[in-house]
Amino acid sequence: MKNNGYDAWLRYDKVKDDGLASQYREWTAEIVASEAAVEGPVASAIKELQLALPRLIGQTPKLVEEKAASKRFLAIGTLNSFSYVEEAVQGPIAALNDDEGYLLKTITAADCSYLVVTGKTERAVLYGVFHLLRLMAQGESIQSLQLAEQPKYRLRMINHWDNMDGSIERGYAGRSIFYRNNELLVDSPRIVDYARLMASIGINGIAINNVNVHRAETFLITDKLLPQVAQFAAIFRSYGIKLFLSVNYAATIELGEVDTADPLDPRVQEWWKQKAEQIYSVIPDFGGFVVKADSENRPGPFTYNRDHADGANMLGEALKPYGGLVLWRCFVYDCHQDWRDRSTDRARAAYDHFKPLDGRFLDNVILQIKNGPMDFQVREPVSPLFGAMPNTNAVMEFQITQEYTGQQRHVCFLIPQWKEVLEFDTKVKGDGSTVKEIAAGSIHPYAHSGITAVTNVGDDDNWTGHHLAQANLYGYGRLLWNPELSSEQIAEEWVRITFPDSDAVQQLLVKFLLESWSIYESYTSPLGVGWMVTPHYHYGPDIDGYEYSKWGTYHFADHKGIGVNRTVASGTGYTSQYEPEHAARYESLETCPDELLLFFHHVPYTHVLHSGKTVIQHIYDTHFAGVERVEYWIERWKELAGEVDEQRFAHISGRLQEQLENSKEWRDIVNTYFFRKSGIADEKGRTIY
Amino acid sequence: MKNNGYDAWLRYDKVKDDGLASQYREWTAEIVASEAAVEGPVASAIKELQLALPRLIGQTPKLVEEKAASKRFLAIGTLNSFSYVEEAVQGPIAALNDDEGYLLKTITAADCSYLVVTGKTERAVLYGVFHLLRLMAQGESIQSLQLAEQPKYRLRMINHWDNMDGSIERGYAGRSIFYRNNELLVDSPRIVDYARLMASIGINGIAINNVNVHRAETFLITDKLLPQVAQFAAIFRSYGIKLFLSVNYAATIELGEVDTADPLDPRVQEWWKQKAEQIYSVIPDFGGFVVKADSENRPGPFTYNRDHADGANMLGEALKPYGGLVLWRCFVYDCHQDWRDRSTDRARAAYDHFKPLDGRFLDNVILQIKNGPMDFQVREPVSPLFGAMPNTNAVMEFQITQEYTGQQRHVCFLIPQWKEVLEFDTKVKGDGSTVKEIAAGSIHPYAHSGITAVTNVGDDDNWTGHHLAQANLYGYGRLLWNPELSSEQIAEEWVRITFPDSDAVQQLLVKFLLESWSIYESYTSPLGVGWMVTPHYHYGPDIDGYEYSKWGTYHFADHKGIGVNRTVASGTGYTSQYEPEHAARYESLETCPDELLLFFHHVPYTHVLHSGKTVIQHIYDTHFAGVERVEYWIERWKELAGEVDEQRFAHISGRLQEQLENSKEWRDIVNTYFFRKSGIADEKGRTIY
Repeated sequence: MKNNGYDAWLRYDKVKDDGLASQYREWTAEIVASEAAVEGPVASAIKELQLALPRLIGQTPKLVEEKAASKRFLAIGTLNSFSYVEEAVQGPIAALNDDEGYLLKTITAADCSYLVVTGKTERAVLYGVFHLLRLMAQGESIQSLQLAEQPKYRLRMINHWDNMDGSIERGYAGRSIFYRNNELLVDSPRIVDYARLMASIGINGIAINNVNVHRAETFLITDKLLPQVAQFAAIFRSYGIKLFLSVNYAATIELGEVDTADPLDPRVQEWWKQKAEQIYSVIPDFGGFVVKADSENRPGPFTYNRDHADGANMLGEALKPYGGLVLWRCFVYDCHQDWRDRSTDRARAAYDHFKPLDGRFLDNVILQIKNGPMDFQVREPVSPLFGAMPNTNAVMEFQITQEYTGQQRHVCFLIPQWKEVLEFDTKVKGDGSTVKEIAAGSIHPYAHSGITAVTNVGDDDNWTGHHLAQANLYGYGRLLWNPELSSEQIAEEWVRITFPDSDAVQQLLVKFLLESWSIYESYTSPLGVGWMVTPHYHYGPDIDGYEYSKWGTYHFADHKGIGVNRTVASGTGYTSQYEPEHAARYESLETCPDELLLFFHHVPYTHVLHSGKTVIQHIYDTHFAGVERVEYWIERWKELAGEVDEQRFAHISGRLQEQLENSKEWRDIVNTYFFRKSGIADEKGRTIY
Repeated sequence: MKNNGYDAWLRYDKVKDDGLASQYREWTAEIVASEAAVEGPVASAIKELQLALPRLIGQTPKLVEEKAASKRFLAIGTLNSFSYVEEAVQGPIAALNDDEGYLLKTITAADCSYLVVTGKTERAVLYGVFHLLRLMAQGESIQSLQLAEQPKYRLRMINHWDNMDGSIERGYAGRSIFYRNNELLVDSPRIVDYARLMASIGINGIAINNVNVHRAETFLITDKLLPQVAQFAAIFRSYGIKLFLSVNYAATIELGEVDTADPLDPRVQEWWKQKAEQIYSVIPDFGGFVVKADSENRPGPFTYNRDHADGANMLGEALKPYGGLVLWRCFVYDCHQDWRDRSTDRARAAYDHFKPLDGRFLDNVILQIKNGPMDFQVREPVSPLFGAMPNTNAVMEFQITQEYTGQQRHVCFLIPQWKEVLEFDTKVKGDGSTVKEIAAGSIHPYAHSGITAVTNVGDDDNWTGHHLAQANLYGYGRLLWNPELSSEQIAEEWVRITFPDSDAVQQLLVKFLLESWSIYESYTSPLGVGWMVTPHYHYGPDIDGYEYSKWGTYHFADHKGIGVNRTVASGTGYTSQYEPEHAARYESLETCPDELLLFFHHVPYTHVLHSGKTVIQHIYDTHFAGVERVEYWIERWKELAGEVDEQRFAHISGRLQEQLENSKEWRDIVNTYFFRKSGIADEKGRTIY
């Protein structure tokens, strides 16, 4: 067994419990699968079983097409594919009406028993098989199963910010798995393994290139590179995943084919229509385009005095005949702001730009909205745009790659953060209008909806740099399938199938994961103020790094206080973008939650929080405490020497040490900055420089 | 005439005064030069005359070897080369005992008159010819000359920080003129023109590669690249310039030839001896090595528990048989300092490291000491190391490239800064122990001494990015020849030979140059505190950019005050590195000069300067004033439209506009930072954010 992390959560470690192992052996000695020979998700499912079962239980399954010889066996296929399946499906099962829902059911018949994995589509069956394997990897009995599941979200996407030169924007785990030196790595065996990992957590769409589309990537939609893109698409297809591409809004110009990118110019419209036809001729199930336009110096419809609806619909029209989608990012703001101007508020930008366009977008256009109004900070309020456009499809965009959350050198398990966002009740249609339900299309009847995220993988052996960062990727997929899973459940599940079967290891790693977001927040950015990081790199403290910049990201700290006044009463008025209940809560110092206080208010350092502490003492206390918690982690981790394979033990030890050293820098720099600025001493007299 | 600046100060614009032009024509119609045919500096001088005279006066000189036919002519040659020269040299002329001194003398004989340019060596003659041409370019009469000059400094060097990939560390004028894609540009016609420019200002040594010697450049001293280096050396040789190379102290290891770089290891010593033999076999007049060792992560003798004398002497031994020199940089400090530690002081480092080694260095080893103790800031005290080692050769290192002084986008004429350094009376041997005299070897009897500097040229058309930055390069050479020249004289001379013959243009440009250092200082870093720039780039304000870094460059600003306490009484004790008179002056708040106050003392913002202003009001006032002065400049420059060729007028207009915009950023960010931190309002109520 490799311990370099390459197998991630598909390790399929040998089942240690003899009773369970023999149970699994009985049920899986023979597999009936009529669709196994075909190239497709069922074939992939069978391959996965053939790879997993020898590892789990030391037994290679025998594959039969119609009828098993054994008394117990596994039967796998789509609905109506053969009689075992038909027998298993009795009465209405909601999950089986869903394209992706599956049923795992043990049937005891007169002469034999069999375990059926079925669903409406091949990929549903594949998901079912991964579920079954997950049960085994966790040591669950499969003796009498009756499990029907379907995903909460229709679109469960991954965005890659990979560039064709092999670099990854905001990548912290090596180079791209897709590209090297402007070539596509079509022969890389990693791609299949990557598709397996993604399918195993239910991902059904992947955009394989950076939303910042530079010159080389503009050619992905041309004759030159489309054949190779199609090879990637074929691999993903066999795992039930649609391939998407990020496109350059000015591709017409960049490729020298039309001298404008004006969405209302008939030549531009025609060009994209032909482009869509060309793409679909080689990738018939192509997912569609992801577009970053008029954002951070990318071209877009604004250049031609058109709005985003004009821009997005033009692409939507082109893709419509083929069922393709346009994912139009709402990360649009003035990135040439004057820091002197306190009235302009970047947090307002997405809502101000897009809300007035509600209803103007085509049915196959989806707005892609970041979870917060700024940019994936460790703490932000939920974007007020989400749910605010009842007549416009939307997906929520999370960030799995830890750009502002420790760059995969610090542990920061993000599921709790995402769950907070999903559970946020926007109130847009009264109580219960949670982000979770909006993204599911249950509040507004969206034609398309779901969740997407920027991924954290690269070509590091273990995919994610930090072994524990794999948990974010795993958890992302699991959460999209079932947002009712708790952070703890997800953490436990991931640890169980990824790490050795040791209670001590599992308990400690779950503890690390669950505490990690709060710890990272505690020694970095206090009370929702955000930023305070080294410009461009976004790693390491630089309190004034963005303070006098053009990026709209300020804390306004002076000798008296800190924070951004976003109230209606005296600030930028951003609070008014929320429904009245939230608007009022954020507007008032009395009700604004502590953790977002400095996002919404500029207050004196002596302001007393709901916690009873002053702002300045909160800063000092959390920064000291954060480091202490990392120190405590390291002590606890050391106790596990010998319980975890050496390779991963050493890797995690090294990263924890790095996290400790870095957290001390954060602590001392943040504390010193505010002590020097405020002149207020730490109540506890600890060392500040 | 090209107006892109390529000709720099060797423009040789047509002489407008008809009387002068005909005078010049008379004296230069015929040139007697016995050494003109040989390849060497005299031949180069003749070539220069042949290029310059047609431009200046529309007449190509006739070259004869022995005897002129005309009644007036020019006679050029080394001492004793022919009879005209011998006749000109009557009695003892000090300059002619110097290898580089020259005589320009008009002789009136019975049947003819002639103007002699002579000197002991060919390069002395070349310098004399450049002097003559400079006189003509300035419109001076040459009717009755008697001018004998010799340079103040023996070593008059230029350091290039050019890398073989074509980049230039701290270069602001394009790419390298020597390298591209790891190849040497031996066929580039620029090299000859560059040698002409350098010879015209008396430069006699050039190190052609970066002191940070990376892998590719390590090969410059190997078979692979030495033949091409020799081609560069040949070009420079014909202009009287010796070629130097920066070497990798760990070349033995990097080239895989010896597994150590320990200077006391006989294999290492032998390797360098053979290396020297090899180099001198192809470049017989090779100048020597420039070495940055044990500095900013470069390898050095410390790795082997040897000291800098061990390290430098090992190289010195190798070069000694050939007369080669080792220029050993003293820019050695802890670049992994803990910002929390206020007792360590980077300013102390060079003195602390090197002073104890006085007397231990070989005769052909020269310490290369930066002008200040930090790193080429807009304002620093003079390095206390200079003059402190009576038994160790030293050169002063200046920085022509405007790393911390506006990066050739802002005008910053550095001659006044360098003159302040040169005029600084160290008192090491009582009154009159100026840096100027120490560098000349007049205070301590150095075997070798002089001045070197990091240059500001690249492959931009005009060599230096900003046209006006040429004045720094020109002035550097002129100052090294004759440090008694005033900044104003140098500025006037440069403007006269570089810009149109218009009083308005010349007066304004001289004014710009002379004011520029003070203006740049006024809107950037106050009272000698330094730094406060964007890390790595060193351009643009970032007040805390280096405050919490490992670089030893702090201002320690808090809500009460700012500055670095370097006193003996309560600080780092740096002041004690100076002779008692200076030590006492810097130590005391009463006598420390305002412009260096924050370099030596941490004071409250309310501290009253000798100027009568508080520190905080000084910060506000200078920052507002600096921008106003740039605005005034722009108004004045506009008045010159039509007086300067369009190309240079537009270029300078553009740069001034950029300077204005950038100076506003400096002003507002610096003022806002200190206002927010101190809470003290501007007395004049101007806008601070």
